[in-house]
Amino acid sequence: MKILDGRKLKSEIATSLKNEIDSFVNNGKNCPKLVIIQIGDNPVSNIYIKQKMNFAEQIGAKAVLEKFDEKVSSDIVVAKIKELNLDNSVHGMIVQLPLSAHIDLPNILNEIKPEKDVDGLGAINIHKLVRDDKTGIIPATARGIITLLEKNDIEIAGKNITVIGRSLLVGKSLSLSLINKNATVTTCHSKTKNLFQFTKNADIIISAAGKPGIINDDMVSENQIIVDVGITKTEDGNICGDVKLDKKTVAAISPVPGGVGQMTVASLFLNLFDTYKNQ
Amino acid sequence: MKILDGRKLKSEIATSLKNEIDSFVNNGKNCPKLVIIQIGDNPVSNIYIKQKMNFAEQIGAKAVLEKFDEKVSSDIVVAKIKELNLDNSVHGMIVQLPLSAHIDLPNILNEIKPEKDVDGLGAINIHKLVRDDKTGIIPATARGIITLLEKNDIEIAGKNITVIGRSLLVGKSLSLSLINKNATVTTCHSKTKNLFQFTKNADIIISAAGKPGIINDDMVSENQIIVDVGITKTEDGNICGDVKLDKKTVAAISPVPGGVGQMTVASLFLNLFDTYKNQ
Repeated sequence: MKILDGRKLKSEIATSLKNEIDSFVNNGKNCPKLVIIQIGDNPVSNIYIKQKMNFAEQIGAKAVLEKFDEKVSSDIVVAKIKELNLDNSVHGMIVQLPLSAHIDLPNILNEIKPEKDVDGLGAINIHKLVRDDKTGIIPATARGIITLLEKNDIEIAGKNITVIGRSLLVGKSLSLSLINKNATVTTCHSKTKNLFQFTKNADIIISAAGKPGIINDDMVSENQIIVDVGITKTEDGNICGDVKLDKKTVAAISPVPGGVGQMTVASLFLNLFDTYKNQ
Repeated sequence: MKILDGRKLKSEIATSLKNEIDSFVNNGKNCPKLVIIQIGDNPVSNIYIKQKMNFAEQIGAKAVLEKFDEKVSSDIVVAKIKELNLDNSVHGMIVQLPLSAHIDLPNILNEIKPEKDVDGLGAINIHKLVRDDKTGIIPATARGIITLLEKNDIEIAGKNITVIGRSLLVGKSLSLSLINKNATVTTCHSKTKNLFQFTKNADIIISAAGKPGIINDDMVSENQIIVDVGITKTEDGNICGDVKLDKKTVAAISPVPGGVGQMTVASLFLNLFDTYKNQ
């Protein structure tokens, strides 16, 4: 059973990005700069932000945290985004999710200049994704999963792919990206009846349900590729994915941790490097 | 074999919209007003525009055609859209497709104020569709197909629906709408291998391939619902759909002509009536 090793691939991407950025900097250019907007002090967000800051440092990019109080008004956040839109030294920005309920997320996302929207979640980039306009920025998790497959020489075009999940962040943006890459995509979710009917015959299963064990021995067939996007914290403080195979083996599988989560960080910086080159 | 009669349903929607609009007008309100922007003189577009103008007249709404020369610049069209955005007497506008190549369609679509974008094809409404934000306007063809199913008491939630096509206008916006309505959706297209695998076991097949006969006896099973969105002009000047069944029967089918095409016009005015009530 081949392991789709996100940690290893992330490290290869880091090396390659570092080389490319070095050569820009050696030619007198500034390095790429990402601004991370955080509202409040969610401990899980703090961990993800730390990972992003560390990766930036590793590749020779700059990542700056703009942290706001939990109770900040949307107006103040929007004013900061407008300032960053105009700042030529900033090549990309993201809003660390989740946001507290009093902030209108889509409005905030849509204030980010599409060319700097490196999470690819604003209306203009999502519109481009739906229209298959290649100038758009693909949401980081979707790009991470696609990169994980492609770099492991797993073909996407013409394949029968079952995606479990329908969020903006993963399920829908991933389904759209895979359709654009010529896969036949079945999008399943909590209201899907007889899920195994859709997983058993798939070439590739991508599970972003956040439900440990939803992909088990009964759901899979040998020769399948399984990508596990689930991240659930267990009672003992560890994290586990959606996949739990006891008896069966498949052709390839991405582990949790060390799979897609790693790729999301790397892809964010692949997106940043694209916007950097375009600006 | 039940016929999903778009013509009859369109006429029922017309009656119901007329009654509702009459009661607004009798209370001293202006009637709903749609502006259709046409660039050039495409004869097929002329037919569709005529259908829309006729439907508007039938329901007591106003439809105004703003026709531009084939060679008009985007700037002039955008200036008109900006004027219409500010005009409180206009409740909705659409750009009649297809556009000639020199006009950047997404830019034009995104100039239309989202609250007046009654074709639902601009970035803000597509973003809402992807996020399942119910305040968005659903693209008219997708809404037409969903209305055709629902008004014929065909359940969507929990069903296994295969959509053939991946355009912004139909395939993708329809797939997204159906996912939002809790269907499990498989999106197929020209690069799908073994299409019959995905059609045979579906509860509902919706074909928007524009390829006559792509859905034939070998592709279907009894008890299925088939919605035919294909419109192809044959050599003898008639139009035909994607479905050609010689021996088999299914539970229900929408005819071409007289099926989805009729519903698209009706749904455009359902969208217009929604924006009218909201403005």
